[in-house]
Amino acid sequence: MDRILLGHGSGGRLMHQLIKEYFVPEFDMKTLGDSAVIDIIADCGIRNADNAPSYPPLKLRGGRGSYELKTQNSKLPRFAFTTDSYVVSPIFFPGGNIGELAVYGTVNDLAMVGARPVYLSAGFIFEEGFLIDDFRRILGSMANAAKRSGVKIVAGDTKVVNKGKGDGIFINTSGIGIIADGIEISPKNIKAGDKIIVTGTIGSHGVAVMAERNGLSFDPPVLSDTAPLNDMVQEMLSNGEVHAMRDPTRGGLATTLKEMAMESNLCLEIREDSIPIAQGVKGASELLGLDPLYIANEGIFVAVVKNNEAEDLISIIRRNPLGKNANIIGEVSESPSGKVLLKTMIGGTRILDMLAGEQLPRIC
Amino acid sequence: MDRILLGHGSGGRLMHQLIKEYFVPEFDMKTLGDSAVIDIIADCGIRNADNAPSYPPLKLRGGRGSYELKTQNSKLPRFAFTTDSYVVSPIFFPGGNIGELAVYGTVNDLAMVGARPVYLSAGFIFEEGFLIDDFRRILGSMANAAKRSGVKIVAGDTKVVNKGKGDGIFINTSGIGIIADGIEISPKNIKAGDKIIVTGTIGSHGVAVMAERNGLSFDPPVLSDTAPLNDMVQEMLSNGEVHAMRDPTRGGLATTLKEMAMESNLCLEIREDSIPIAQGVKGASELLGLDPLYIANEGIFVAVVKNNEAEDLISIIRRNPLGKNANIIGEVSESPSGKVLLKTMIGGTRILDMLAGEQLPRIC
Repeated sequence: MDRILLGHGSGGRLMHQLIKEYFVPEFDMKTLGDSAVIDIIADCGIRNADNAPSYPPLKLRGGRGSYELKTQNSKLPRFAFTTDSYVVSPIFFPGGNIGELAVYGTVNDLAMVGARPVYLSAGFIFEEGFLIDDFRRILGSMANAAKRSGVKIVAGDTKVVNKGKGDGIFINTSGIGIIADGIEISPKNIKAGDKIIVTGTIGSHGVAVMAERNGLSFDPPVLSDTAPLNDMVQEMLSNGEVHAMRDPTRGGLATTLKEMAMESNLCLEIREDSIPIAQGVKGASELLGLDPLYIANEGIFVAVVKNNEAEDLISIIRRNPLGKNANIIGEVSESPSGKVLLKTMIGGTRILDMLAGEQLPRIC
Repeated sequence: MDRILLGHGSGGRLMHQLIKEYFVPEFDMKTLGDSAVIDIIADCGIRNADNAPSYPPLKLRGGRGSYELKTQNSKLPRFAFTTDSYVVSPIFFPGGNIGELAVYGTVNDLAMVGARPVYLSAGFIFEEGFLIDDFRRILGSMANAAKRSGVKIVAGDTKVVNKGKGDGIFINTSGIGIIADGIEISPKNIKAGDKIIVTGTIGSHGVAVMAERNGLSFDPPVLSDTAPLNDMVQEMLSNGEVHAMRDPTRGGLATTLKEMAMESNLCLEIREDSIPIAQGVKGASELLGLDPLYIANEGIFVAVVKNNEAEDLISIIRRNPLGKNANIIGEVSESPSGKVLLKTMIGGTRILDMLAGEQLPRIC
């Protein structure tokens, strides 16, 4: 393969290959997840007298002394840092637009590592000729979305490319969150016996965008589920033992479960009849020839939680309007390691792999 | 005006208008500079018992208690946060490529508020069909540039748009830096009597890109000056009183000086014959019909420093290979407030304004 394909951006196997083969070795990255958990002390290489990582007050020594990092024995909290570019087409779709998607998507990436989202940046790439009115509408949505999520947009950038060299508007948002002591969220913490929760119905975002793109409308309409998940995450973290979380955006539920299975080296078994899916999405998927398990979502997440806390957590999640359709969809077993097994409605077992190629390009 | 123009991305007056009219009010932004200085304590709204902003250890209260932010009386350092999208065309040019530009550009934005750059994110938007070999070359340049700058690239994202809806590759980098106690860099700190320093020759980056775009070559070739400025910044901060810094990228030296004049409400007076400019850039600018004062730079910065420390600082800067052509180009006076005056070689005075329209679209 010598060229980038649309599938490289679809969140599935091609993208994972690209990340694994190029990004990780070149940048010496430790994680394949969306948010990096950063330890600014360790990464600054700052040590105290005992050679332990230590918080630098970073004082200037005297007026003209050297710019030296002094240390003391206090600790910095851990932060989460993430980035996402949004190229969804069309930019306005039932239930949302590229602006709120760009805010909620990045807020959710931070929330998925247990961070409290605090700051966002917003970088715009316009195609010459883009309507200022559309820009204002998008900006307004972003401001509202930031308010709803409790984050501040503090840095911005604007670039313009010639007509025909872009597609209206692309938005990058990067985000910083702060992680509470004691919070450790990672597929590596998944244990056999854990329960798998999905916090809402699947497939709405992808179907809403595809419908708009193809000029279809449904009655009742299928709306994107784009929403901030950070409050629901905090409710869960304060009430139970959550081992891993991830939002099934590009690549859909199946790809996210497969990532978790591979990163934990365990088997995730789910039951088809327990997966929440709206009637409209089911019908539309059949019509469009799409598998809802691979359709992108923007307002739900998968949580893998301690076995005997799952029922309590489900009732807590369901009290949140965004979680009213939450369900336990399966559990974790030892083997076959790295696999996702779907128990189908007719009693068969299907092995779920990552999305191959592009089912839905430019969905976010 | 109802549509986005190329000039909205050129760093000049149109872009400032866009930021001021839309971004600042919608996002309630405090600064117009490239990097936001963030105070995570104040922005989390966290207070200690005395109602003073206070660092939260963010401990979970008990196993199932509420997710409460407890406070103690230690302090968090200030961070800088910045974002930039790179859409330079062509992506390979004499002296560099889009990859190292994306790293150094963001490193420099952090350095300009006195921060030590620590983390970068990298978000890629590919046009379908982009050559993997070119991607590898760019990624390699980014990894080298990160190493040279002392930063880690810790978060990434990949999107692909259809053929004809992008232009090869666009890169967004966002960055986080840490700011030492006592460092306050802002045009608001500029005082009448301060000296204005430029750390190197102007116009190289813009001329290198324009030459490549137009198939011109010069002998000797004009190379982009793209380089990380953070070390030179640290050398200056440890050796003198620096009031303001800014790197004159899009919009060139004139636009940057005008920003500083407006934000400080003072007058910046510079002498044309003291502005360092390479022969090749001078010749090429004449050939291309460009004013070097408005041509983009990527490896120099403007520093406004305390009057009686300027000479010492200049000799320190000149010891750094990136600063060997540094010069004092003028000084600050009370009035006319908000203006930049250029004393020309023939003895006249020219008022410099921001770049109007687009002199050089897609230069970074």
